[in-house]
Amino acid sequence: MEYSSLLLENAVGALARLPGIGNKTALRLALHLLKEDALETEQIADALLKMRRNIVLCERCHNISDTKICSICSNPRRDENTLCVVADMRDVLAIEHTASYNGLYHVLGGVISPIEGVSPNDLRIAELVERTKKEDIKEIILALPATIEGDTTNFYIYRQLGDFKGKVTVIAKGIAVGDTLEYVDEITLGRAIQNRRKFD
Amino acid sequence: MEYSSLLLENAVGALARLPGIGNKTALRLALHLLKEDALETEQIADALLKMRRNIVLCERCHNISDTKICSICSNPRRDENTLCVVADMRDVLAIEHTASYNGLYHVLGGVISPIEGVSPNDLRIAELVERTKKEDIKEIILALPATIEGDTTNFYIYRQLGDFKGKVTVIAKGIAVGDTLEYVDEITLGRAIQNRRKFD
Repeated sequence: MEYSSLLLENAVGALARLPGIGNKTALRLALHLLKEDALETEQIADALLKMRRNIVLCERCHNISDTKICSICSNPRRDENTLCVVADMRDVLAIEHTASYNGLYHVLGGVISPIEGVSPNDLRIAELVERTKKEDIKEIILALPATIEGDTTNFYIYRQLGDFKGKVTVIAKGIAVGDTLEYVDEITLGRAIQNRRKFD
Repeated sequence: MEYSSLLLENAVGALARLPGIGNKTALRLALHLLKEDALETEQIADALLKMRRNIVLCERCHNISDTKICSICSNPRRDENTLCVVADMRDVLAIEHTASYNGLYHVLGGVISPIEGVSPNDLRIAELVERTKKEDIKEIILALPATIEGDTTNFYIYRQLGDFKGKVTVIAKGIAVGDTLEYVDEITLGRAIQNRRKFD
């Protein structure tokens, strides 16, 4: 195959290195950019470069941020007494998207996983313990994945928080909203029955 | 939803303007770039900018090119006596991909379509006629889409080529390789029977 343009070939090759973008999609995107005004390409390249060059991790919650302290941590309208512990910055976005939470976050950077070689020291657990001493936190919500690794990490954090005087809670596990019982897996359904709560 | 980073939000917004890329995919791509080495982002941005700023149309075949005359037109090993007329630069890539063609191309820039307001004057048909006078072309292969618009354009070009002494051919229409007859639509199958050729 002769591309007739090395510039196009390079652009397609660069785009196709992105996850989930194959050669055909990359070609479609490149041809789209060629068809559109040049400003479009300039804006995309500029936005990507600015993001990659300037984004840092918030020094307080370790979420991605444009400034030393992120906009969530520095927002005076957020509840500073509640801290939600998540594995990944993606989880912050997911929780923000629910519009059900108004406290602060603490991004661990993963969960304990011996198989993938992630030990507690690779995560920001010590920083979390440190925050409980410095900040006026009344509740820590553990919002880690509902996996064995997530449970292990929950347990490890709980032990590390021995001196913490506030509440430690964990997000509810159960059947999803809209689920019909027959299609729910038996472990989830069993847990949902065990963890039943007063109807109110 | 609070993104916690305006830079990320801008990058996601820019990527999501690309066709077929939604907000979720754009976010996934942006987070991928943040996780990877910064060089990755620099390379992608650089490849896109270089492509958009420097690509031109080949003055001879009107295909996209890095230089005034594209690499296909200037390749001395290609057959200069055969010219394949296509609607779009994408078609050049598709034909090159077959590795069945070694001649030159002429990119029309579309097909005649009264509905979409594309008249013969919007296409590079006059340039094609001009080429038949200047260049030593022995065969013109019409490889336009197998649609009514494509057929109309074929017919229009054929009439415009009145003085052309060489052969004018059209690519074969018929059942696709691998097709079982029962699933082929009746128009295609009917045409395939009409256009049957000697078995050899």
